[in-house]
Amino acid sequence: MNVKRYLPILDWAPRYGRDQATSDMVAAVIVTVMLIPQSLAYALLAGLPAQVGLYASILPLVIYAIFGTSRTLSVGPVAVASLMTAAALAPIAEAGTSAYIAGAVLLAVMSGIMLTLMGVFRLGFLANFLSHPVISGFITASGIVIGASQLKHIFGVEASGHNLIEIIHAIGVSIGETNGYTLAIGVGAWAFLMLARKHVKPLLKGLGIKPRLADILAKTAPILAVVVTTLLAWFFNLDEKGVRLVGAVPSGLPEFTMPPLDTGLWSQLAVSALLISVVGFVESVSVGQTLAAKRRQRIDPDQELIGLGTANLGSGFSGGMPVTGGFSRSVVNFEAGAETPASGAYAAVGIALATLFLTPAIAYLPQATLAATIIVAVTTLIDLPALGRTYRYSRTDFGAMLATIVLTLVHSVEAGIIAGVALSIGLFLFRTSRPHCAVVGRVPGTEHFRNVLRHDVELCPKVTFLRVDESLYFANARFLEETVLDLITREPELTDVVLVCPAVNLVDASALESLEAINERLHDAGVRLHLSEVKGPVMDRLKGTEFLAHLAGRVFLSTFEAWQALTNKPDRMMCSK
Amino acid sequence: MNVKRYLPILDWAPRYGRDQATSDMVAAVIVTVMLIPQSLAYALLAGLPAQVGLYASILPLVIYAIFGTSRTLSVGPVAVASLMTAAALAPIAEAGTSAYIAGAVLLAVMSGIMLTLMGVFRLGFLANFLSHPVISGFITASGIVIGASQLKHIFGVEASGHNLIEIIHAIGVSIGETNGYTLAIGVGAWAFLMLARKHVKPLLKGLGIKPRLADILAKTAPILAVVVTTLLAWFFNLDEKGVRLVGAVPSGLPEFTMPPLDTGLWSQLAVSALLISVVGFVESVSVGQTLAAKRRQRIDPDQELIGLGTANLGSGFSGGMPVTGGFSRSVVNFEAGAETPASGAYAAVGIALATLFLTPAIAYLPQATLAATIIVAVTTLIDLPALGRTYRYSRTDFGAMLATIVLTLVHSVEAGIIAGVALSIGLFLFRTSRPHCAVVGRVPGTEHFRNVLRHDVELCPKVTFLRVDESLYFANARFLEETVLDLITREPELTDVVLVCPAVNLVDASALESLEAINERLHDAGVRLHLSEVKGPVMDRLKGTEFLAHLAGRVFLSTFEAWQALTNKPDRMMCSK
Repeated sequence: MNVKRYLPILDWAPRYGRDQATSDMVAAVIVTVMLIPQSLAYALLAGLPAQVGLYASILPLVIYAIFGTSRTLSVGPVAVASLMTAAALAPIAEAGTSAYIAGAVLLAVMSGIMLTLMGVFRLGFLANFLSHPVISGFITASGIVIGASQLKHIFGVEASGHNLIEIIHAIGVSIGETNGYTLAIGVGAWAFLMLARKHVKPLLKGLGIKPRLADILAKTAPILAVVVTTLLAWFFNLDEKGVRLVGAVPSGLPEFTMPPLDTGLWSQLAVSALLISVVGFVESVSVGQTLAAKRRQRIDPDQELIGLGTANLGSGFSGGMPVTGGFSRSVVNFEAGAETPASGAYAAVGIALATLFLTPAIAYLPQATLAATIIVAVTTLIDLPALGRTYRYSRTDFGAMLATIVLTLVHSVEAGIIAGVALSIGLFLFRTSRPHCAVVGRVPGTEHFRNVLRHDVELCPKVTFLRVDESLYFANARFLEETVLDLITREPELTDVVLVCPAVNLVDASALESLEAINERLHDAGVRLHLSEVKGPVMDRLKGTEFLAHLAGRVFLSTFEAWQALTNKPDRMMCSK
Repeated sequence: MNVKRYLPILDWAPRYGRDQATSDMVAAVIVTVMLIPQSLAYALLAGLPAQVGLYASILPLVIYAIFGTSRTLSVGPVAVASLMTAAALAPIAEAGTSAYIAGAVLLAVMSGIMLTLMGVFRLGFLANFLSHPVISGFITASGIVIGASQLKHIFGVEASGHNLIEIIHAIGVSIGETNGYTLAIGVGAWAFLMLARKHVKPLLKGLGIKPRLADILAKTAPILAVVVTTLLAWFFNLDEKGVRLVGAVPSGLPEFTMPPLDTGLWSQLAVSALLISVVGFVESVSVGQTLAAKRRQRIDPDQELIGLGTANLGSGFSGGMPVTGGFSRSVVNFEAGAETPASGAYAAVGIALATLFLTPAIAYLPQATLAATIIVAVTTLIDLPALGRTYRYSRTDFGAMLATIVLTLVHSVEAGIIAGVALSIGLFLFRTSRPHCAVVGRVPGTEHFRNVLRHDVELCPKVTFLRVDESLYFANARFLEETVLDLITREPELTDVVLVCPAVNLVDASALESLEAINERLHDAGVRLHLSEVKGPVMDRLKGTEFLAHLAGRVFLSTFEAWQALTNKPDRMMCSK
């Protein structure tokens, strides 16, 4: 066993020096300042007490620093995984109850086990089943659902629901009970954060601050909103005026937590845990790869599975919730100059200190402020132009994307993603099941062959050259049979059919049987089947099969060779009768 | 709407003449003689009263003659569909009860609706999801299970079960109660049929009968076994000696039957009905195509769906069971000279006459005789050498086949076929998710480029030519990113990467985004991305995308053009630094 593969920390820790430590610590301070409100907010989004978000931001970061391969990924609670956690736990228990919290712990542990096993068995390719349009549509729809779900905190009303329809309906019913103070704080924080996002950077640059630093400082606006509204709530006793605050948060570091061992619960949450794992993994890897490439570094997706898996195990066993790599935090970490995963470990120290010393203050934090930070954060997830881009490029991809979005919005996140995956696989198989086929003819005077429908080419009435632009496998084996049989019923004079195969990357057992059947049926009809331009690896397999032994015709290296051999007068316009 | 498309009978009926009618009638007589014992036996196999098999062999044949496109397919009860019917109905009701019979009617109606709708919406391609190895493995395993399930009738014992383990166990428990008379009849009939299959043909030929006729006569052996054992049972009153007979069969034509309208039952049987439909369709089409090609005729798979669908509707509404095209009967029909589907309608008349006049005799038919005909018939389904052939050709196809066989044998037919389909799709996606990629170099002095690992070719240290032998889509988009990023981390001198794309038949939206990401990451690392030999349809799509607008490098028509442009000294062994 290669120890280094499983412990990427051995790659960088032995050469870790003071300069790197300084860079990592600076980045860690900035990430910590971002992470405190985010971890509280995403716990709230998941329906969990605020401290669960903090717990999920301590041990997982330390563990990822040991097992992760990205130098700059910032692991912790993220918006989409929190929404999926809430959706998974809703049928299990009432939000905030001890059974609900135990469910979140179990989800983290199961997700940890699944990711780690997938990493050990190198099953990272499973994430490939999530096509980009499906992931993109899913994240857009999740962002919309998350944003909508936070409106109740802005209005200060009771309203719950796990899809857009339920949420809008619930808010519509209860909007009469809006709390004015809450609304003022929520809208105020929201407006402040939006303005900060748009105008603070230019302002800071105007003050002579370097663009990169200005960028980073602008990202710390949420902590300012948190501090100001917390002070307001404390000073004006806003909880007595009906403003919902985070409330008492236990002080102190997380303790060891056992997940519930109820097997019924495990099987009930299995699909949710798998989806949270895979979605989180895909997001982490794409952020990690983007950042790594900028410095010509590499991440190892299979080891990333182990890094994220062990981080989730750490989160679960320390009373946390499912975690993964967050996009905005990782970018900030990268741009603030983090050089090694140690930066994450330092941020964990920051969060641990917050858990020890800041909890009395957090009690006064209005939930509306957290809701505003969530809403502003998720707007970056919503990518509606992607719909148009995908539509213009490919209708089938667009179909899968739209189905994902619509089902996520109107039904549930799980239905959305499952439908998206099923549809993209189905549409891909459908597309390859009717491959592009072209009858080709010779470009006069050359050795090249082109589609008769697109080019002015020489033909021979007795020999048809059919080019198939796809690997031959079970989904199109029957299509091939039908195409060739159509050919011979349409052309009664035909004596030879040449399958031109430069684009055939694979011939599976089904296609082999179809080729045998085609050969036999053509033979019954007095027509010989030939092949040309068969690729090396495909030919290697065909050798020794009965198909080649029974093939009525020949296998030609080039289509021109077949033309010369079968049409007799290779240099005339028309071949002999 | 094209009436002729939906009514293939209009193709042949207007020109139907006396010669054709004579040929069709001769074939019909022979098929009827085969069909009587088969329809009784397959009803028995499905756990249904004998008359249900007869009912399923009347109206469906007439309807198929109107809507079917195969000239010679013989529709009716078949072994595998009967086994699947029994498996589907086992959890619903006790075999032979009225609820069970109503379930069979419902299965036929649902299967009819599904097939007809699939035909109208041209969804015949769905059948492609059943790869040949899965179908072949499934039929082999079904044959084994069917054969084993009939042993209880040969021994005359009570034993039930829906997979090999249950059946063997049940027979083991009850074998002590074997009935000697039943065993004698069963083994006698079995031996007779085996001998007939092997030796009757040569014997008849020796008597001067033409080979084709001898072949057909040999296939009528089952009716002889039926007649002889029925006479024995009647003459010696064998039912009083414990030999189980078919028993009283109601005389007369089938009546209109309504399927149960219980929605719970419909949803419970939906998956089974779909599997029966698809498996039946695949078998019918492959038999139909094989026979049609011998006469340079064509069948239309989408219209076949309508033909089989309406035949199943007819079967259900006349108190029958699921039907499809039978392999052996269709071959006999073809070889006996049937020229049009009218032959099937004539056979229906034969079965109707049998239902009217032969039922008193059928009451004395020993079940052991029917079991023997089933066992002999299904041995032709079992194709064990296919396992070896598939293993030698492709391990992945073999894996799907083996899983199908094992699950069908030890669990159930439905688990077997679902696992086979899921596995073949999964393995195909896995296979294409790690496509064959080769760094290629120039064959010295030519314009050709070949794999550096297989050939002695020219290279350039600053430019890498990477050929990808697969369409680019979501399952391999990430693999491509990793492959290219690996390349640039391994080769620090690299300035240009050329993706050589002659085998890329498709670039979906996921792969497009991956190409964008690759281009961007290479750009960040100071490397330009180029493409060469992009196919026409792929290029048509890429035009107008942001990827082409942002592409750091160029799109070259040929790889040689790229070589000339990027390596500066196209005719030297080494390119310039």
